[in-house]
Amino acid sequence: MGIAMSYENYRTSLDKNAANFIPLTPLTFLERTADVYPDRIALVHGDLKQSWGETRTRCRRLASALIRQGVKPGDTVSVLCPNTPAMLEAHFGIPWAGAVLNAINHRLDADGIAYILEHGESKVLLVDREFSGLTAKVLEAVKSTIFVIRIDDPLAPEGAPIGDIEYEEFLRQGDADFRGLWPQDEWDPIALNYTSGTTGDPKGVVPSHRGTHLMSMAQIVNWSVPTHPVYLWTLPMFHANGWCFTWAITAVAGTHVCLRKVTAHDINAAIERYGVTHFCAAPIVLANLVQSPGGSEAAPRAHPVRVLTAGSPPPAAVLKTIQERGFLVDHVYGMTEASGTPISCAWQEEWDGRPQAEQVLLRARQGVRCALLDELAVLDPITGEPVPSDGKTVGEIMVRGNMVMKGYYRNPAATEKAFAGGWLGTGDLAVVHPDGYIQITDRLKDIIISGGENISSVEVEDILYRHPAVLNAAVVAQPDEKWGETPCAFVEIKADAGVVSEEDLIAFCRENLAHFKCPRRIIFMELPKTATGKLQKFRLREIAGSRDAITKLATLSPQR
Amino acid sequence: MGIAMSYENYRTSLDKNAANFIPLTPLTFLERTADVYPDRIALVHGDLKQSWGETRTRCRRLASALIRQGVKPGDTVSVLCPNTPAMLEAHFGIPWAGAVLNAINHRLDADGIAYILEHGESKVLLVDREFSGLTAKVLEAVKSTIFVIRIDDPLAPEGAPIGDIEYEEFLRQGDADFRGLWPQDEWDPIALNYTSGTTGDPKGVVPSHRGTHLMSMAQIVNWSVPTHPVYLWTLPMFHANGWCFTWAITAVAGTHVCLRKVTAHDINAAIERYGVTHFCAAPIVLANLVQSPGGSEAAPRAHPVRVLTAGSPPPAAVLKTIQERGFLVDHVYGMTEASGTPISCAWQEEWDGRPQAEQVLLRARQGVRCALLDELAVLDPITGEPVPSDGKTVGEIMVRGNMVMKGYYRNPAATEKAFAGGWLGTGDLAVVHPDGYIQITDRLKDIIISGGENISSVEVEDILYRHPAVLNAAVVAQPDEKWGETPCAFVEIKADAGVVSEEDLIAFCRENLAHFKCPRRIIFMELPKTATGKLQKFRLREIAGSRDAITKLATLSPQR
Repeated sequence: MGIAMSYENYRTSLDKNAANFIPLTPLTFLERTADVYPDRIALVHGDLKQSWGETRTRCRRLASALIRQGVKPGDTVSVLCPNTPAMLEAHFGIPWAGAVLNAINHRLDADGIAYILEHGESKVLLVDREFSGLTAKVLEAVKSTIFVIRIDDPLAPEGAPIGDIEYEEFLRQGDADFRGLWPQDEWDPIALNYTSGTTGDPKGVVPSHRGTHLMSMAQIVNWSVPTHPVYLWTLPMFHANGWCFTWAITAVAGTHVCLRKVTAHDINAAIERYGVTHFCAAPIVLANLVQSPGGSEAAPRAHPVRVLTAGSPPPAAVLKTIQERGFLVDHVYGMTEASGTPISCAWQEEWDGRPQAEQVLLRARQGVRCALLDELAVLDPITGEPVPSDGKTVGEIMVRGNMVMKGYYRNPAATEKAFAGGWLGTGDLAVVHPDGYIQITDRLKDIIISGGENISSVEVEDILYRHPAVLNAAVVAQPDEKWGETPCAFVEIKADAGVVSEEDLIAFCRENLAHFKCPRRIIFMELPKTATGKLQKFRLREIAGSRDAITKLATLSPQR
Repeated sequence: MGIAMSYENYRTSLDKNAANFIPLTPLTFLERTADVYPDRIALVHGDLKQSWGETRTRCRRLASALIRQGVKPGDTVSVLCPNTPAMLEAHFGIPWAGAVLNAINHRLDADGIAYILEHGESKVLLVDREFSGLTAKVLEAVKSTIFVIRIDDPLAPEGAPIGDIEYEEFLRQGDADFRGLWPQDEWDPIALNYTSGTTGDPKGVVPSHRGTHLMSMAQIVNWSVPTHPVYLWTLPMFHANGWCFTWAITAVAGTHVCLRKVTAHDINAAIERYGVTHFCAAPIVLANLVQSPGGSEAAPRAHPVRVLTAGSPPPAAVLKTIQERGFLVDHVYGMTEASGTPISCAWQEEWDGRPQAEQVLLRARQGVRCALLDELAVLDPITGEPVPSDGKTVGEIMVRGNMVMKGYYRNPAATEKAFAGGWLGTGDLAVVHPDGYIQITDRLKDIIISGGENISSVEVEDILYRHPAVLNAAVVAQPDEKWGETPCAFVEIKADAGVVSEEDLIAFCRENLAHFKCPRRIIFMELPKTATGKLQKFRLREIAGSRDAITKLATLSPQR
């Protein structure tokens, strides 16, 4: 129920003015931190240590140089770059030029990147020299003219000297005293973040200055991030602007520890060298960390390292070992469309006393809304009503909150669909437990509809995993003229498993599943994963020829 | 510089809707915390422990009962109450009725309270029975009809059974399932907080839902408040809604520890009994804490207690002792007009290595803006330009930020004056040190203008304090036909000081000060202080007959 204020005295001479109403924007965090802690280390990268004062100056130069280059307010400026200083600087310097920051997933192929540059109407591309070869191909495919700035990161592999100018030289063209263009309206766009398309085109999520400011606050408050964290950049900044930690860590005057490659060795080395206190990582990264040399045997670390993990629940064994090693793991859930992870498995103190096995199950749930997410609901897709909190009835996860995107760029139809019913539909299916915690059971796209019956791909995968020879399994829909869809399984076999045939596995499934749920086809192959270890199911759908692989979800995002 | 967006593609089909734009309000914090932690303890009060679920239900009942009583959106509802559960409930239940919360300083006299009720056009008054007698006098003086609800707090002293109904009975009239009226516009008022008038009328500061939401976030982020703090209510909730900690502690699912009387004994007892982790207090409270039985001798506490202090810099000896006792003290600065304390003496790690005496001086400064205060400046009152950062040149402290009030209720002239130049003028004079930290030198009203020369009352007081017989000293302006104003000193003499005359002290001042700066008059008396120990200089001005005692500052607020 909303209030229609009736009392006019509270409407009189109590207006907004320059002193009491300032558009919310995360850009202010850099100004404040550079004012208060000018000499403190803002970021480290190999042997480089860069202060907040230096970082602000470089961001101001970037903004100024972009404007001198002809960038106009509302223009898109793209970045193709790992987690380096230039990538962080782009998060302030590009919006300070009034431009929209388009950080691109560098794991996409040339066609995918070319599509984004064209659809996003990008005017400028900053590119790390590691991707010189890729960029050359991209530029061949792009019809429009794009000004290319090459970033010669000293830690980058050699790369062809492509581009119109080198980044450091470009910065020197900018005015170190430029104060930046600031949004007049907090609803203005700050970024353009493409979700990965599959057989369809990727969609450009547009967050606002207001939304990213509030999501930054939400991350700090919900994760209890204190002043001066040492934050390791394992999560790509191109994933929803690193879930807003690019800005949030700046707000609390932390130190950004850059990282080009997410390997267990590099993570362990950075933790030791820089005293890392916080990082975000997919469960597979944690698994690698535990299994790496020195990972599980070494003594527990002197200070605890806090970890946010998302994408899938961390496996019990990994969770147990990594917590024993001094990592405090929190499980979160989110989406590019909500600028990060506004849902988390908030720990209840009473769970401390539960058996370890039960704790793992509790922590595997996606959880509850953070204080800045206004509403979280699991709604019946047909009736639109909330499902009962019985831990059984499945509905779609829906959210409302100020961190939710403005919409998809140049895609009114997709925007309208995403916001149907006055909610952001996530496309994820979940149950609500009696304590109000939600748990994902399936993605909408992971439901296989065969002869009118719903088949959960997760259920079929669970059965395949029980077979002693199976290392990894993934099940997707395969178009079928008679049944509409049937399950198709992709399987990796253990090295020591001996010979296993398609028929063996199908027979095993038929022993354990209703026959209509059993895969009609088993394909043996190494499963495609992202560099962060997340399964690329959309590639399997391509192989299986799935008809409806277009979804609004970013399957590449580690948080999805 | 603001951005005028030129690129229309970012203006198309990217509108606000029910899923991505929700008015900011701190009321949402209670909903979320009660959803996630329904059984956790929200507040304790003596032997009472009340869960978040119960607290939400009681606030819903309060809102519903107020509406049934005839309260309309935009009506003012007043509360005269110490820091009890009812006072906290008022911070949610009253705005949930669409009404404006007017928490009144119960240290005011009957006329002062009657003025506020009439100027604020209050429809309902909730009053703790401790103030039954006071309220009877107030109601005699008030012309309008006010519905009075008596709060029979079991820990309150006996009081006459005034009022139309008792609070618990009133709550029973409300609907436990009422979901509350929510602001349609985050700029709507949430509270009405009167600063203390002196010879003039008090002014009603009106904060918005947006401003108090953001100030709540600012308090959590700037003070690094983790999830589940145990917060002791030493700071009155009627002071700018407890600097927004009423809402902020709720947002992080803390426990509010109520406290009727701020005594060293009660504070120490509450810390021990409830495991308090955080509280806010004037320096005098800290001094009492150290000097109380068991205060300085007892062993350091097992867990550190974090303290915010404001009003005046904590004395060196107190700071040293209290920090040795396990209290971590941060010095903050703010004003009712900014919903709390958006300025703090942010600690620099390099100061850890400085000598103790230097650390105390560094910590005595008011400091720098928090991440959510957009601008803090010290401006020359004549030119309006920033003063140099030389630690010497004095200017007025000015702020801009979203936590700044909408304005003064029914006082357009004062509102316009407060916002002159597009800043909120604080009326406090300060210097800016070379490191950017500000330090208050004087209040505007503490400057005595005598024969066209400015005299700093602080400077005169400092000299008086050097006299071995002086325990306390305060200097204010006294109207003078010839000089305009002259200094008038109020002095408390030490118990063992023997006989000291007015002439002795004036002679002492003339030895140490320019003669025009010396007090013309010395009045020996116990200095009037608030219950939190803050000097009530306005009372001295009344005695001295100062002509310009009307200021925009809340001299009663401990943060001023």
